[in-house]
Amino acid sequence: MEKKIAVILGDGIGPEVTQQSIKVLNAIAQRFGHSFSYSFGLMGADAIDKTGNPLPDETIETCLQSDAILFGAIGHPKYDNDPTAKVRPEQGLLRLRKELQLFANIRPISTYSSLQHLSPLKSKQLKGVDFIIFRELTGGIYFGKKELSEDGSYASDLCSYSKEEIERVSHLAFQYAQKRRKKLTLVDKANVLETSRLWRKIVQEIAAQYSDVAVDYMFVDNAAMQIILNPAQFDVVLTENMFGDIVSDEASVLSGSLGLLPSASVGNKTALFEPIHGSYPQAAGKDIANPLGSILSAAMLLDHFQMNKEAAAVREAVGWTLANGFVSKDIDAINNYSTTAIGDLIMDHIERNA
Amino acid sequence: MEKKIAVILGDGIGPEVTQQSIKVLNAIAQRFGHSFSYSFGLMGADAIDKTGNPLPDETIETCLQSDAILFGAIGHPKYDNDPTAKVRPEQGLLRLRKELQLFANIRPISTYSSLQHLSPLKSKQLKGVDFIIFRELTGGIYFGKKELSEDGSYASDLCSYSKEEIERVSHLAFQYAQKRRKKLTLVDKANVLETSRLWRKIVQEIAAQYSDVAVDYMFVDNAAMQIILNPAQFDVVLTENMFGDIVSDEASVLSGSLGLLPSASVGNKTALFEPIHGSYPQAAGKDIANPLGSILSAAMLLDHFQMNKEAAAVREAVGWTLANGFVSKDIDAINNYSTTAIGDLIMDHIERNA
Ligand SMILES: [Mg+2]
Ligand SMILES: [Mg+2]
Repeated sequence: MEKKIAVILGDGIGPEVTQQSIKVLNAIAQRFGHSFSYSFGLMGADAIDKTGNPLPDETIETCLQSDAILFGAIGHPKYDNDPTAKVRPEQGLLRLRKELQLFANIRPISTYSSLQHLSPLKSKQLKGVDFIIFRELTGGIYFGKKELSEDGSYASDLCSYSKEEIERVSHLAFQYAQKRRKKLTLVDKANVLETSRLWRKIVQEIAAQYSDVAVDYMFVDNAAMQIILNPAQFDVVLTENMFGDIVSDEASVLSGSLGLLPSASVGNKTALFEPIHGSYPQAAGKDIANPLGSILSAAMLLDHFQMNKEAAAVREAVGWTLANGFVSKDIDAINNYSTTAIGDLIMDHIERNA
Repeated sequence: MEKKIAVILGDGIGPEVTQQSIKVLNAIAQRFGHSFSYSFGLMGADAIDKTGNPLPDETIETCLQSDAILFGAIGHPKYDNDPTAKVRPEQGLLRLRKELQLFANIRPISTYSSLQHLSPLKSKQLKGVDFIIFRELTGGIYFGKKELSEDGSYASDLCSYSKEEIERVSHLAFQYAQKRRKKLTLVDKANVLETSRLWRKIVQEIAAQYSDVAVDYMFVDNAAMQIILNPAQFDVVLTENMFGDIVSDEASVLSGSLGLLPSASVGNKTALFEPIHGSYPQAAGKDIANPLGSILSAAMLLDHFQMNKEAAAVREAVGWTLANGFVSKDIDAINNYSTTAIGDLIMDHIERNA
C-alpha cells in the first residue's frame, strides 16, 4: 500500500523521538511491501521561530493532503515564562485540532511486566491491565461560554453537549470495543449533570446497534477510584472532554513511565498520532529521550491504515526491547540506551524477523 | 466543657458504628472531665419508614440546637431499586446540608503502616502521606442551571462561582493549613476555565492574609496523577465542588480501606461529622462493620470543639488497635474482631491511659 504521512517534528525532544518512528515505519514498509512517503510541516515554537506563526497554512495543507499525521511534541519554556508573548506554541496544536475536527482522543493504557517495578501501583493491581480511553475532545465545558462579571466577583463556564457530538465519538468507541474484549464503560456523572444524562441516553440508544458489546456506566468519582483499585476491569472507556482529561492523565501513571504512552486524535479529516509526553526541553538534543511513546503512536497509525499485522510487529519489537532491558534513562537511570540506539534496535528487530 | 451532640444513626451499618463512637466520646468525657449530652434525630430510610419524611423538622431543630452532629450513614436498596419512589433517603442529607449551609467538606487522608499491604499503592508511595482535602460543597456545576432541549438533542450544565463562595471555604482551608504543615495547594483548571481563574485570583488575594502558608497551584488533571505518584507532597488541598468529588474519592483508596476514613462538613451553622463509607446494608446488624470511620469522625468533632488533646487520644487509641491487629473483617478476612469489640477496645484504651 502507498501512504502519505505528514510529519510534524515539533519542539524539544519531538524531532529526535519522531526520527526513530520514521526508521521504524520504513522497516515496516520494507518488510511488508508498503511505500510510505513523508511530508514535513512546522508547528509550535519551532514554527514561531522560523515563520512567526505557530501553525503555518502550509502545514495545515500538508496535513489535509496526507493519510495520517505523525507529531512529536509541542512547547518551549521561553514562551511559558513570557506573559507578553502574543503567540504561543500550544496555539498551533489547538488550531490544528480545530482545522482537522479531531473530536476523539484515544489513549491506550497497557502495562509491561518488566516495568512493573516503576509503577506506583502494586503488581497485583496491574495484572491484565489493557484498556483504551476515548475522550471527546472538542465539546463540553472546555469550549463552553465563559463569563466573568465586570466587577470580577462572579464567573461561570457552560458545559454543553449535542446529540451529534456524543454520537460520533460513541460510534468510534463501540467499533473499537467490537475489535477488543467487547466491553464499553461510559464514565459520567448522570446522578447530577444534565449533560451526563444526555450522554447516558444516547449511549444506551447507540448500544442497540452494537449488541455484541456489553455496556456499563460508572460515575466519574467512582471511576477515579476504580482506575487504581481494579484497572483490569476496563476494556473501552468512553467519556466527555473534562472527565476524559482527568481520568486519562490519572490512568497514564499506571504503566510506570509517561515516556512510552501513545495517543491518537481522530476526527472528520486526517487523524493525528503523538506520544502523550511533552516537549521535555531539558532533554532536547541529548539523545536520552524515550522514543517508545512516539513509536507506539506510529503503531496506532498503522492500525489506522488497517495494517494490523504491521502494528503488531512494531508492538512486538517494543515489547522485546523492554523485556531485554534496552531502555532509556527514564526507565533505568544506570543502565540505559540512547534514543537512537533504541530506535535502531527496534528497526533491526523488525527487519530481522521479516 | 459541656457540649450538646445531635446524633443521627441513619441507615444500614450507621447505628452500630455510631454507637461505638458514643462509647468512645463518653470515655473521653470521663477522662478529660467533659459532659456530652446526646439528642437523637431521624434521617434517611429510617426516617421515611418511621415518619414518611427523609428529614423530619424535629431533626433539623435538634441539629440547629446542638454544638455538633454525629451522623452514621444513609441509604437503603429498597429505594434505589424503586424508580417510582417519591421520597429517597439521600434527599434527607441533601436537605440537611442546605439547612445547615454546609459549604465545606473536609476529608483527611492518612495511612497506617499496619495497613499498607491493603493499599493498591506501593509502600514507597505511601510514606509520609498525611493531607486533608477541602471541597467546596454547595456551589459549582452540581448546583448550576441545567437545561435539556425539548427534542432531547442538547443539554447543558452551568458551573458558576461567586467571590463569597470561594472566600469562605478558602479561609477555612488556610486556617487549617496554619495549624498543619503550612502548605496549601489549590486544584483547578485555570488554563481553561473562567471559574478556575476566579478561584485562583481570590486564593491569591486571600493568601496575603496568611503569609506563613505556602501556596501552590495544580491543574486537576495533574492532581489526579500526583495523588498516586507523590501523595506525600500535599498538606491542605483546596478545590471546587466537582474536582473535590473526584480527587477526594481518588485519594480515599490510598489508605487501603474506605472503612476508616472520616469526614466533616462545616458551614455557617452546626457542623456535621460522618464516615465516608455508605450504609453497607448487606452488613447491617451483623456486628462486622468497621467502626473506625465513625470513631475518627468523632475525633474530628472533638477537634471542632477545640479539644485537640482529646482528639489526639482517640487517634492514638485507633492507631493502637490497628497496630495490634484488632481490626474488622474488611481489613482482615480471617482474624478479625466485631464492631462492638473494637469499640470496647478503643474505649478501654482511652480509659486505661487516663
Ligand atoms: Mg491533561
Ligand atoms: Mg463522590
